[in-house]
Amino acid sequence: MSTTVGIIGLGLLGGSMAKALRAFTDYEVIGYARRQEVCDAALLDGCVSSASTDVTDIIENSHIVVFALPPDRNAKLFTETAHLFRPGMVVTDVSSAKRNFVKAVYDAIPEGVRFVSIHPMAGSERGGFEMTTKELFRHTTWIVLDDPSKACWSEQVAQELSNMGRAFGARVIHVLLDEHDDYLASVSHMPHLMAATVAVVGGGGEDGTFRMQLAAGGFRDVTRICAGNPSMWREILRGNREAVLRELTEVETQVARLKELLVADDEGRGLEEYLRKAKAIRDTFTELMVK
Amino acid sequence: MSTTVGIIGLGLLGGSMAKALRAFTDYEVIGYARRQEVCDAALLDGCVSSASTDVTDIIENSHIVVFALPPDRNAKLFTETAHLFRPGMVVTDVSSAKRNFVKAVYDAIPEGVRFVSIHPMAGSERGGFEMTTKELFRHTTWIVLDDPSKACWSEQVAQELSNMGRAFGARVIHVLLDEHDDYLASVSHMPHLMAATVAVVGGGGEDGTFRMQLAAGGFRDVTRICAGNPSMWREILRGNREAVLRELTEVETQVARLKELLVADDEGRGLEEYLRKAKAIRDTFTELMVK
Repeated sequence: MSTTVGIIGLGLLGGSMAKALRAFTDYEVIGYARRQEVCDAALLDGCVSSASTDVTDIIENSHIVVFALPPDRNAKLFTETAHLFRPGMVVTDVSSAKRNFVKAVYDAIPEGVRFVSIHPMAGSERGGFEMTTKELFRHTTWIVLDDPSKACWSEQVAQELSNMGRAFGARVIHVLLDEHDDYLASVSHMPHLMAATVAVVGGGGEDGTFRMQLAAGGFRDVTRICAGNPSMWREILRGNREAVLRELTEVETQVARLKELLVADDEGRGLEEYLRKAKAIRDTFTELMVK
Repeated sequence: MSTTVGIIGLGLLGGSMAKALRAFTDYEVIGYARRQEVCDAALLDGCVSSASTDVTDIIENSHIVVFALPPDRNAKLFTETAHLFRPGMVVTDVSSAKRNFVKAVYDAIPEGVRFVSIHPMAGSERGGFEMTTKELFRHTTWIVLDDPSKACWSEQVAQELSNMGRAFGARVIHVLLDEHDDYLASVSHMPHLMAATVAVVGGGGEDGTFRMQLAAGGFRDVTRICAGNPSMWREILRGNREAVLRELTEVETQVARLKELLVADDEGRGLEEYLRKAKAIRDTFTELMVK
């Protein structure tokens, strides 16, 4: 009998995982969605062998349960359903800010149930089952969160979830669970807020729409991600607020520095040096992504 | 006899204009580059019928002279070569910050020479003749700068340069010259600095390279443009410093607001509202770009 993965939430990440599991592995896949039409779409697609709007149904019939709702809803739902988990079962989640969900799990996970969190660094500003694809994870980073001091954490499960990412064509990286949210504040959550800021400053206000007619690929790319789901991002950002606040303070320091460099009496040498540093960092990122 | 366009600088914009003029119009095209190997590459490509490292040569044989170097170098070169321009000739430039070049032109342009500035909103973080393409301007915005109170400005030349943009497949928009740099600070120069800031904060410091291994498409897109040429951007940003400083101050206001919203005792309603506003602005931009 094959192992059954139950996916809680068939949005962009959950639905794409269902499709990738179906296409690239031997797991049986079942899924929960709040709305019957999403269940119907997933069944029609064939990426799940069964779908339900009753989460109990899905958890009770799964070996591995993937929480793929926004972080606060994952946490709330785990608390409500923890009693359904039996020894040997596996809990995981795919969200971008871990703190609240992890707390909910550690508070209520029954003995013998194992928990290893993952974070597939794949996404889009457009969500929903209609945007899902089995190729979402290819050439992306698949973070597996290590927390070896916890009894419910399991090396074997971490290995199984790593293999899942590899089967999807992703690069697997292990990160300590405790450090994950700080890192993500830096390379994902703060960039999201800066995209929103550039959109508001560049394209807001009375003549914002006219100004945006003059904008080009730079504005397009800097602001792209702020078209993402505001409700999901509220949960991510508030769930990681201390680290996000620290990063925003660092942004303020850098903006103050740039203002000095713009008016410095040095023929722009300091500003050019700053731009060179930023370019060197970005060029390093390009090299990392090619690997 | 056909009209000859002399392009001063065969980098991404100048070289792409040469190729587009050659492909889509009847103009004869000649070009100046500082380095002989760039002249040779342009001649080999066939986009210019003649190329020279002697700028006098090119100006003396042109009807329309396109300054396509970074803004300060354009300004300096115009001042040095203004005496070469004869009545009936046309001066234009394609740079992203107009103030310094425009001042140099208005200070020294000989009587009877006409000047209409343009700004093709096309570019890339990768420059140089090797990146040029005749398709660079297709579906992009081609700004024609109006300054009708100036004697050297010409409606007829503005029309000719507009038609050039249309021939290249661009959307033409007219903007008052006086207002151009303020608009660009908002939708191009400030976004460039925020891309640099996100790169430095997200990917700088001791473990920056490790953190960037965890980054994904969001970080990639927000930071893309800061890989552009630091020396060119120094000239653009310093050439438009007052307006850029105003935009950075506006960024500071927004960041302070976001910090308040992250910790507000409102269950994230204010933060979600902010993210909704940013998303609505970005969605409007997407609609504008499709038109």
